[in-house]
Amino acid sequence: MKITRLEACESVPIDMQGVLGATKQVPIGKGDGVPNFSIRVFTLEPGGHTPHHEHDSEHLNYILEGAGELMEGDQPRQINQGDYILVKPHERHQYRNTGDVPLKFMCMVPVAYE
Amino acid sequence: MKITRLEACESVPIDMQGVLGATKQVPIGKGDGVPNFSIRVFTLEPGGHTPHHEHDSEHLNYILEGAGELMEGDQPRQINQGDYILVKPHERHQYRNTGDVPLKFMCMVPVAYE
Repeated sequence: MKITRLEACESVPIDMQGVLGATKQVPIGKGDGVPNFSIRVFTLEPGGHTPHHEHDSEHLNYILEGAGELMEGDQPRQINQGDYILVKPHERHQYRNTGDVPLKFMCMVPVAYE
Repeated sequence: MKITRLEACESVPIDMQGVLGATKQVPIGKGDGVPNFSIRVFTLEPGGHTPHHEHDSEHLNYILEGAGELMEGDQPRQINQGDYILVKPHERHQYRNTGDVPLKFMCMVPVAYE
């Protein structure tokens, strides 16, 4: 059993093509011996974004703080604190912080990815 | 892609041996075509609890609101809003609301369970 908090998790800037102003924390991941899937937390600074991409795996997301847009293909959808989101495999998507405070969200993925 | 909120998810009382004062919502589950895992949200009323049990699957939890205790075997551990938790397969556990407001937490499990 592991109980942790974000304050205890190292925050790592993401250096990846298509990413701006983003950091990652991994409260529960491969290193904890998870059998199936992991919890990452991304923080996007105002104006920041994740890559506009698609991939084999799904995302399960929960918006912890802030607001912004989630691109569904080329269509922006408003997202707010408290939203639960499923991005299915091969759906092109991008998280954008269009607000003026950090956008923080959980991102659950199969353990192969984290 | 699915974006939803708790207010839009039916709240179902849990009628199961060892459970008291608990309801379940499923923001993201089997019905949404998830490939690997689902998000449920449990709400325990003050004095409420989940079963004191163990099972083949892990839990990944995030405490949304309230506080309480998580039994690790027979050992209570304090849990608070903002905690991230991994309960590994076959670890005996129980969530207890020892506070005076509802305890609400996310519970991610493999899709076979939800």
